[in-house]
Parts: sequence; C-alpha cells; structure tokens
Amino acid sequence: MKIDIDKAPTWVGSGYPAPFDAPCLDRKRVRLGAAAGLSQFGVNLLHLQPGTWSSQRHWHSREDEFVYVLAGEVVLVTNAGETVLRAGDCAGFPHGVADGHQLQNRGTEVAVVLEVGTDDKQDVAEYPDVDLRATPDGYVHRDGTPYPPRK
Amino acid sequence: MKIDIDKAPTWVGSGYPAPFDAPCLDRKRVRLGAAAGLSQFGVNLLHLQPGTWSSQRHWHSREDEFVYVLAGEVVLVTNAGETVLRAGDCAGFPHGVADGHQLQNRGTEVAVVLEVGTDDKQDVAEYPDVDLRATPDGYVHRDGTPYPPRK
Repeated sequence: MKIDIDKAPTWVGSGYPAPFDAPCLDRKRVRLGAAAGLSQFGVNLLHLQPGTWSSQRHWHSREDEFVYVLAGEVVLVTNAGETVLRAGDCAGFPHGVADGHQLQNRGTEVAVVLEVGTDDKQDVAEYPDVDLRATPDGYVHRDGTPYPPRK
Repeated sequence: MKIDIDKAPTWVGSGYPAPFDAPCLDRKRVRLGAAAGLSQFGVNLLHLQPGTWSSQRHWHSREDEFVYVLAGEVVLVTNAGETVLRAGDCAGFPHGVADGHQLQNRGTEVAVVLEVGTDDKQDVAEYPDVDLRATPDGYVHRDGTPYPPRK
C-alpha cells in the first residue's frame, strides 16, 4: 500500500544520555516502514537540521544499515575519514564491522536521508568516540556501568 | 562506506518463464546493498523503461518489501486498484498479506525506484493474475508442475 507520509509516526530528538544527545536533538525520523506494517526492517525518512548529526559515531554488532541521501548534503564520518554525500549518494554499513559511522549536516539546508536498518533485540552498538555503548538493557559506560534511565 | 553506484553489480531482464517475462525485460536492477556487503536485506536501484513492469503482480509469504520513487512515475497495482506513485512517494508490502502488487511504468520517461526487501530461502511468492508461483525450488504452475529450467 502507498504510505501516507504525513500520517506516519514521527520521532524528534535523541535518547542518548547527556551530553551525547546534544548534537542529535534536531533530527526528525518519520517511520515509513512502521507506517506500512513492515516488521523485518525499518525505513525512516531522516530530516537533519543544519548542524545536526544523525547519531554519535557507532557500529552495530548485529544490525545492517543503509542510507540514501534524498536532499541536501551530509558528511559521512568513518575510520577512513570524511566523505561528502549529496542527493543520489548512498552508503552501507554491514553489521559486525568495527568501523563507526555517522552523518553530519554541516550545510545550511535541511538534509533528507532515507535510512534502512534491521532491529535485533540482542544488538550491541559501540561508540568509539565517546564513553558509550548501547546494549539490550540500555546505555552503559565502556566499563559496563549503566547510565541513569531517562526521565 | 560510500557505495560506488557505477561499480555495483547490475542485472537486466527477468527470470520469469515466458511469456510472463515479456513486460519485465527492460528493467535494470543495480544491487546497492550487495555492493556494500549487506546481508540482512537487499537494496536495489530499479530503472524501469517506459512500458516496463517491476514484476508480475505478486506477494511474498516471508519477505517484506518497500519501494521509494526517486524519479519518474509508476502505477502501483494492488487488489485495491491503481495508484500513481511519483518522486517522493513510497509504499510497503508486509510479508504474508495476500494482496499482490506491481509497479508499471506507463509514462514516457525512465522511472527510478529504490527497492528494499529481505531474502528468505523458504519464501513463496504467489502471482494472482497468472499461472505462476515462485517456490524455493523454482517457478511452478499453480498445480505445482515445474516450469522448465531456464537455459
């Protein structure tokens, strides 16, 4: 069925513990896959305001990810350095490859990115630049100490 | 990693038994997910020449599908009838829902569609408009008789 984008569930903000949420607060995700009743992978329309990051740089133990830039421009940051992605460019991030990635909107226009990814309840995400790990039980420090639950 | 679209593996044509392949011969799929080493879902850049269909109308027992129109215009055909999808429109097809779908390019320009889907080795695809079923062992008639293997 055609997806009514205007009626799809939307999420704005970040669930990271402070201060790691700060660069990601102006991101909006429109959940297209959920709107269509898909369960095997998620598809989001990501809107990144100027100055906003898609995420802290991270990689997933069990979840593949794919991004396709629809409008604007983002900087893809990985271990290999920085690469500009413009409308029509795309990138993939296989699970289990220990190379963190993130998209930064350093431009002056909103960047719009189609994101696809799986959701594995046993996934662990590693954040190599900050003291953060996402586990099935929530965010923890690298030493395993939990962050306080968000209010 | 950024995907080099020009170097991604490409497939032109259709594996359907004749005559069901005829409307799908001018379709090209650029395998973006495979180019990036993704294994949990496939992502293709589908190019449909004028007059070409994405597929015979079908639904999957075990594979979710999602399409996002990037350029041109296609007609989505389902049990509910026909819906035009233009650039920026998208649709989703949850597995196990017995409502066949296909995209037809009835326009004069090439239509470009981003397709996402899973690959389940036990999937069966039903084709309600024609005498065709796709099984893990290949294409069969509705009565289960196999079609001859393609040369």
